[in-house]
This record gives sequence, structure tokens and C-alpha cells, in this order.
Amino acid sequence: MHKGAGANHWFIPDGYIPEKSSGELTSHESVCVLNRSSEDAQLTFTIFFEDREPLENILVTVPARRTSHVRTSSLERDGARIPVGVPYAIEVQSDIPVVVQYSRLDATQAANALMSVVAYPIA
Amino acid sequence: MHKGAGANHWFIPDGYIPEKSSGELTSHESVCVLNRSSEDAQLTFTIFFEDREPLENILVTVPARRTSHVRTSSLERDGARIPVGVPYAIEVQSDIPVVVQYSRLDATQAANALMSVVAYPIA
Amino acid sequence: MHKGAGANHWFIPDGYIPEKSSGELTSHESVCVLNRSSEDAQLTFTIFFEDREPLENILVTVPARRTSHVRTSSLERDGARIPVGVPYAIEVQSDIPVVVQYSRLDATQAANALMSVVAYPIA
Amino acid sequence: MHKGAGANHWFIPDGYIPEKSSGELTSHESVCVLNRSSEDAQLTFTIFFEDREPLENILVTVPARRTSHVRTSSLERDGARIPVGVPYAIEVQSDIPVVVQYSRLDATQAANALMSVVAYPIA
Repeated sequence: MHKGAGANHWFIPDGYIPEKSSGELTSHESVCVLNRSSEDAQLTFTIFFEDREPLENILVTVPARRTSHVRTSSLERDGARIPVGVPYAIEVQSDIPVVVQYSRLDATQAANALMSVVAYPIA
Repeated sequence: MHKGAGANHWFIPDGYIPEKSSGELTSHESVCVLNRSSEDAQLTFTIFFEDREPLENILVTVPARRTSHVRTSSLERDGARIPVGVPYAIEVQSDIPVVVQYSRLDATQAANALMSVVAYPIA
Repeated sequence: MHKGAGANHWFIPDGYIPEKSSGELTSHESVCVLNRSSEDAQLTFTIFFEDREPLENILVTVPARRTSHVRTSSLERDGARIPVGVPYAIEVQSDIPVVVQYSRLDATQAANALMSVVAYPIA
Repeated sequence: MHKGAGANHWFIPDGYIPEKSSGELTSHESVCVLNRSSEDAQLTFTIFFEDREPLENILVTVPARRTSHVRTSSLERDGARIPVGVPYAIEVQSDIPVVVQYSRLDATQAANALMSVVAYPIA
């Protein structure tokens, strides 16, 4: 049996899905989750906006001893998705400890630009 | 009622507003704040420079259950703003816990470049 | 004698070796380790995937008072390596405290893109 | 009187001064330090390499209530400097608490690439 590692609650204040892509790569964001334990992790995402109510209770499973690089454009609840070109923020809650990193590839201008942060954990 | 999360005091040592933009995007920096609590957050920014006194007491409100992606070029007190092309640093104090991330898009050279960090929190 | 500093256990959820390079630089990732102690550090890497069992027990030594910038494409055990173009995650365990940072240069599109994070430590 | 904030001891495992610049900007790295206290901070840098002894005891002062964005190419002791094109790592010790962030602009390929991390602190 492998123990879980990380934290149960993570935050990413700077979310943004670029509107455009040019060149060979497609603009996208990934929430990269590592579940090093022998149990599956049940994740709940909340999406916060600047000017409207949060989008709550988006569920994602990360299998035991696996990583999942979740495209934010794939997150969906009752047909509601994160709009492109809008600033937002992400909260991730997990039933067991996991580690969360956020990366964005912006290919708006043919030359790709990349950014990444380890999300902010709370106990 | 939703509880606040994060810390009340954050630091970003590497601030810099690029002087130029070319191509489709505009060079800018954002201080991205997430307030996940059910109360509004009152923020106070202090801007530190290499060669002059700090610019103090810049006030910003982040509403309850919202994120705010604050452009540093919009920060202002009594007409004083952060000059472009000058190294500076940012301190953010909040009356309730929030999470702070800093991102910069540099479009000086037509191809955009991106960097991001979660700010450094103290208790 | 110099004391070690850092942590014994680190995680990097967003690993990815780009498939292509163009222009002057080659796409690559580095796991950058600093061993500031007067003893050598023995590291064990585990690589996690989205859809298959982890690749375990890859051993690396970082000499006393040295840094090592380990190319992920060089990690190997019994002939097994990390495939290119596949999302994965990295766990690093060390017998003494070290500090770990992860950086990626993506040169897919002639213009290079760069990202970096300090890995996530646990005690 | 303003209190210091941050930590007295910081690490940056991934240091690298690019050999070339093209386009409008010059490749460089900055160690960005914020001293929010009312006293000057006395910093000592140690530079670690992959294949030779560390370069020790490089001294830098950051004045009270100021930030300093230190170019790594300016660090020098008895004429010894950090060579370009060589992987290295940075340790920063301070007599009072400060906050340290590291950023690199790589302009090797005309299009600029940017990365940044908050350094790893120990108590």
C-alpha cells in the first residue's frame, strides 16, 4: 500500500483560457494532479469569476498511482463550462492528499508562451 | 457561509511593467486575488522601489466569492502610479485570508512571453 | 562540515517532454537539484503516468556541495525511459535534504518558451 | 519602525546565464529581493556548480524599505564571476528576513522567453 502525499485543498487564482491559437500548438491550460496513493482520489472543482456566481461541484476522479493532466476546457457541469477569454480562479478539493500544479500554454501569437505554478495548498 | 482561505499578507519581489508592446497582445502584469469567503476582502497594496520611498496605502476591494485580476498599471493613489520600465516589488495586506498569484505577459518582442508565481505568504 | 538543507521528498505533477524542436535550442526538461551538504545525496525517482503503471526506482547521485541539472530524457531503468509527448508526473526521494526545481524549455515553435516551478516538498 | 518579513535563508537550484541574446532584449537573470524592514539587509550569496567547488561569500546590501533586482552577471568576488552557459545553483543568506524571487529572460532566439519562481525558503 502506498500512502497519499500532498494536501486536500488547493487554489489557483490566475485562470484564463486564451481565445485564440495560431501556429502548431493549441492554447490551453492544464490542472495537473498527482495521486501517489493506492486509492483513487475524488476531486471537486469550484470555478470563481470576477462578475458572476461561482460554478460549483465539478467532479473529477484521479485513479490510484496515476497522474491526470486535466484540460480546464473539459470541465463541465450540467452543460456549463468555463468561457474563453475571461479571468477566473480555481479551487480544488480532494478526499485524499494529492499534489496540484497549473500550467498554461498561450499560442495566441504563433510563438508559444508557457507559465506554470504549483497551486497554493491549505492543510 | 463560506470560510476564507489563504493568508493575510503576501509578497511579490519581482514587479516590472514592460515599456513596450508589439504584436496582438499588450504587455501587462496582473495581481490575481481569490476571495473564497462570504465576506468582501479589503486589500492594501504597498509598492517598493530600488531608489525612492515606497508608494503606500493603495486600496482595493475583492468582493465575496469572487476573483479579481488587478492590472498593476491601474493601481493609483492621489494620482501616483507605478512607472513603466522600473524594477519594483509588491506587498499585499488583506483583512481576511485570500490567495494571491502574480503573472506577467511581456509582449516587447512580438512573440509573447509569460511568467507566473504564487506570491509568498506570511501567517 | 556543511549541513543539508531542504526536504527529503518532492513532487512535480506536470512533466512533459516535447516531441519536437526547431530553431537553435532543443526542447528539454531539467530536474535541478541542489545538495548544499558535505555528504553525497542518493536520489530515487518515480515516474507516474495517466494510463499505465509507474516507472520506479530510478537512481541518481548528487555529489556533496554540488548542483545537478538532470535531463529527464536521461532517466533510465533496465532500458525503460520516459516517452516523449506523454503527460507524466515526477516523485523524487532523497536520503538527505535537498532542494528541487523543475524547468522546461519548449522549442516546438522556433520561438522558445520557458516554465519553471520549485517542486512541492513534504517533510 | 517596519518589521522585516520573509526568511533568512533561500535557495534557487536552477541558475543559468544564457550565452546569447538576439532581438531587442538582453538575456539575463535577476535575483529579486524585497527588504520591507526599516533596517538594511546584509546578504551573502553562495554559487554551486556541477563540477567544481562553490564560489562563496559574495556580499550584497539591500537598503531598508527597498527592493533590489540583482543581475547574477554582476555578482563578483576577487574577480571571480558566474560563467555563462553553465548550470549552477544559488544560496542566499540574509541577516534579517527578506523575500527572494528569481526570474530569467532568455532572448537566445529573438522571441523572448521568461520564467520565474519564488525561491525556496528555510526557517
